Amino acid sequence: MFDITIVQICDFIGTIAFAISGIRLASAKRFDLFGAYVVGLTTAIGGGTLRDLMLSRTPFWMESYSYLICSAIALVWVILFRKLLVRQNNTWFLFDTIGLALFTVTGIQKTLQAGFPIWTAIVLGTITGAGGGVFRDVFINEEPLIFRKEVYAMACIGGGIIYWLGTFMGLSEEISYPLCGVTVVLIRVLSIRLRLRLPILKGEDQA
Amino acid sequence: MFDITIVQICDFIGTIAFAISGIRLASAKRFDLFGAYVVGLTTAIGGGTLRDLMLSRTPFWMESYSYLICSAIALVWVILFRKLLVRQNNTWFLFDTIGLALFTVTGIQKTLQAGFPIWTAIVLGTITGAGGGVFRDVFINEEPLIFRKEVYAMACIGGGIIYWLGTFMGLSEEISYPLCGVTVVLIRVLSIRLRLRLPILKGEDQA
Amino acid sequence: MFDITIVQICDFIGTIAFAISGIRLASAKRFDLFGAYVVGLTTAIGGGTLRDLMLSRTPFWMESYSYLICSAIALVWVILFRKLLVRQNNTWFLFDTIGLALFTVTGIQKTLQAGFPIWTAIVLGTITGAGGGVFRDVFINEEPLIFRKEVYAMACIGGGIIYWLGTFMGLSEEISYPLCGVTVVLIRVLSIRLRLRLPILKGEDQA
Repeated sequence: MFDITIVQICDFIGTIAFAISGIRLASAKRFDLFGAYVVGLTTAIGGGTLRDLMLSRTPFWMESYSYLICSAIALVWVILFRKLLVRQNNTWFLFDTIGLALFTVTGIQKTLQAGFPIWTAIVLGTITGAGGGVFRDVFINEEPLIFRKEVYAMACIGGGIIYWLGTFMGLSEEISYPLCGVTVVLIRVLSIRLRLRLPILKGEDQA
Repeated sequence: MFDITIVQICDFIGTIAFAISGIRLASAKRFDLFGAYVVGLTTAIGGGTLRDLMLSRTPFWMESYSYLICSAIALVWVILFRKLLVRQNNTWFLFDTIGLALFTVTGIQKTLQAGFPIWTAIVLGTITGAGGGVFRDVFINEEPLIFRKEVYAMACIGGGIIYWLGTFMGLSEEISYPLCGVTVVLIRVLSIRLRLRLPILKGEDQA
Repeated sequence: MFDITIVQICDFIGTIAFAISGIRLASAKRFDLFGAYVVGLTTAIGGGTLRDLMLSRTPFWMESYSYLICSAIALVWVILFRKLLVRQNNTWFLFDTIGLALFTVTGIQKTLQAGFPIWTAIVLGTITGAGGGVFRDVFINEEPLIFRKEVYAMACIGGGIIYWLGTFMGLSEEISYPLCGVTVVLIRVLSIRLRLRLPILKGEDQA
């Protein structure tokens, strides 16, 4: 009972944080309220929707309207606290990271439940966590941020590998999944603190 | 029999009008004939295809080639009447709006038939009507028009809400669905006449 | 046994060649290693994944990790032989074309096996062959190359029509499928040699 509530709260917080990241970028492009809402919603549910389509499941948001409402809350929040959002950056970064961790774990869990091997689960866990941001950047017509700058998807992959090692070492799911989520958070936070980035792939015409 | 014919005619007209909007924008970007055809086809069938994937159905166009043919007619039309298209703007706007209304109604209908609640049906009805235009704009590498300027998707949502109110008030489907379609047309036409737009979401650095 | 091996070798070669085309374009945009890998992978598996979703099948790459590995090989290759890639252009063009032919044939085959008519199979065969390149160009934020310049998808369509004519004339599958693949290769190679292109669709404001 308590566990379910914690997971649900993380789910709401993560959804709102993801939606806010989409709405802020949409507002920088002067999208209208509808456009901003759709970009926010897609950032929040896009990754999980692609995962569900690949698993031949009904997209998760079609069965509970809480995701539509969380995105609406995010829109109202951005409208009300527009000037204060920059000051809230650390808070929303934290909530976004919690969402990333939870979505990755959920993606791995659902893929394994569907009977696929662990490497497929890591790929779909990463898509669940990081896919929404790619849809967001396609909609606002930018090169996807996670392909250029941020250690974001690598945190999901890292978490997935730790889960893999955990089960390999015989840890129970009750331990492996939280371990996976914590790893996602750690990699993401540390990479920001230490300004870690993946190397850029040099082009053919560059020295 | 008569009803089916009216719906089919609206379906053909709407498909051609949607395809023409895609082909015209593709030609402005100097796409070749194949590219223009694909952009036109995707504008026409993209929304319904995404809806069908989310409903775990076979995409509707895979079972009848009339949509491929309608898009080919649209391509030939644009090639033949290139210089006259501007003068035909009002006609194609009307046909496009008829298509928008029909596609929205179809989307709502199929989602309800699959057993989902009405709010899911309104979302998928809106995707059916307005989704193709988003694919079109992604292909021609522009920020989606319906996220920035036009009252387009809001017409679908408005129509969906009227359908909801209709069933809530006990109206039969034979009345609610046409009412939904008429609402879509009215909102779209009035918003253009009265130059209505949704407010732009102000960015964080704007006054 | 021998046949399977030939097909598998072509599958690996084609996957690596498709991935290299994505990775090279990603590196020109200064994507990081993860971004380049994802763009390469999507170029290689994107078309077949969309086909499988439309056929309500599990995406093919979720059941064998060879596609992830082929894309990793492609990434290592681009890193190691960066300066030499231009000199290898003809080789990779050939491998890419072999992949295009094989993917088209596979797409047609799987669609027919699922019970769809031949025109649906040609569309999905073309999506299998040419769809990955469209995802690639959306990710790197460019107008899709195959909509503007290259005779690429038309080679798939041409191969599909030859297959159609072949079965129409009573040829067995053992002959029609290779004939289809050879046609794809021939159209692609000849169109490059003879600098053939589809006509550009003139815009409304052009003479």
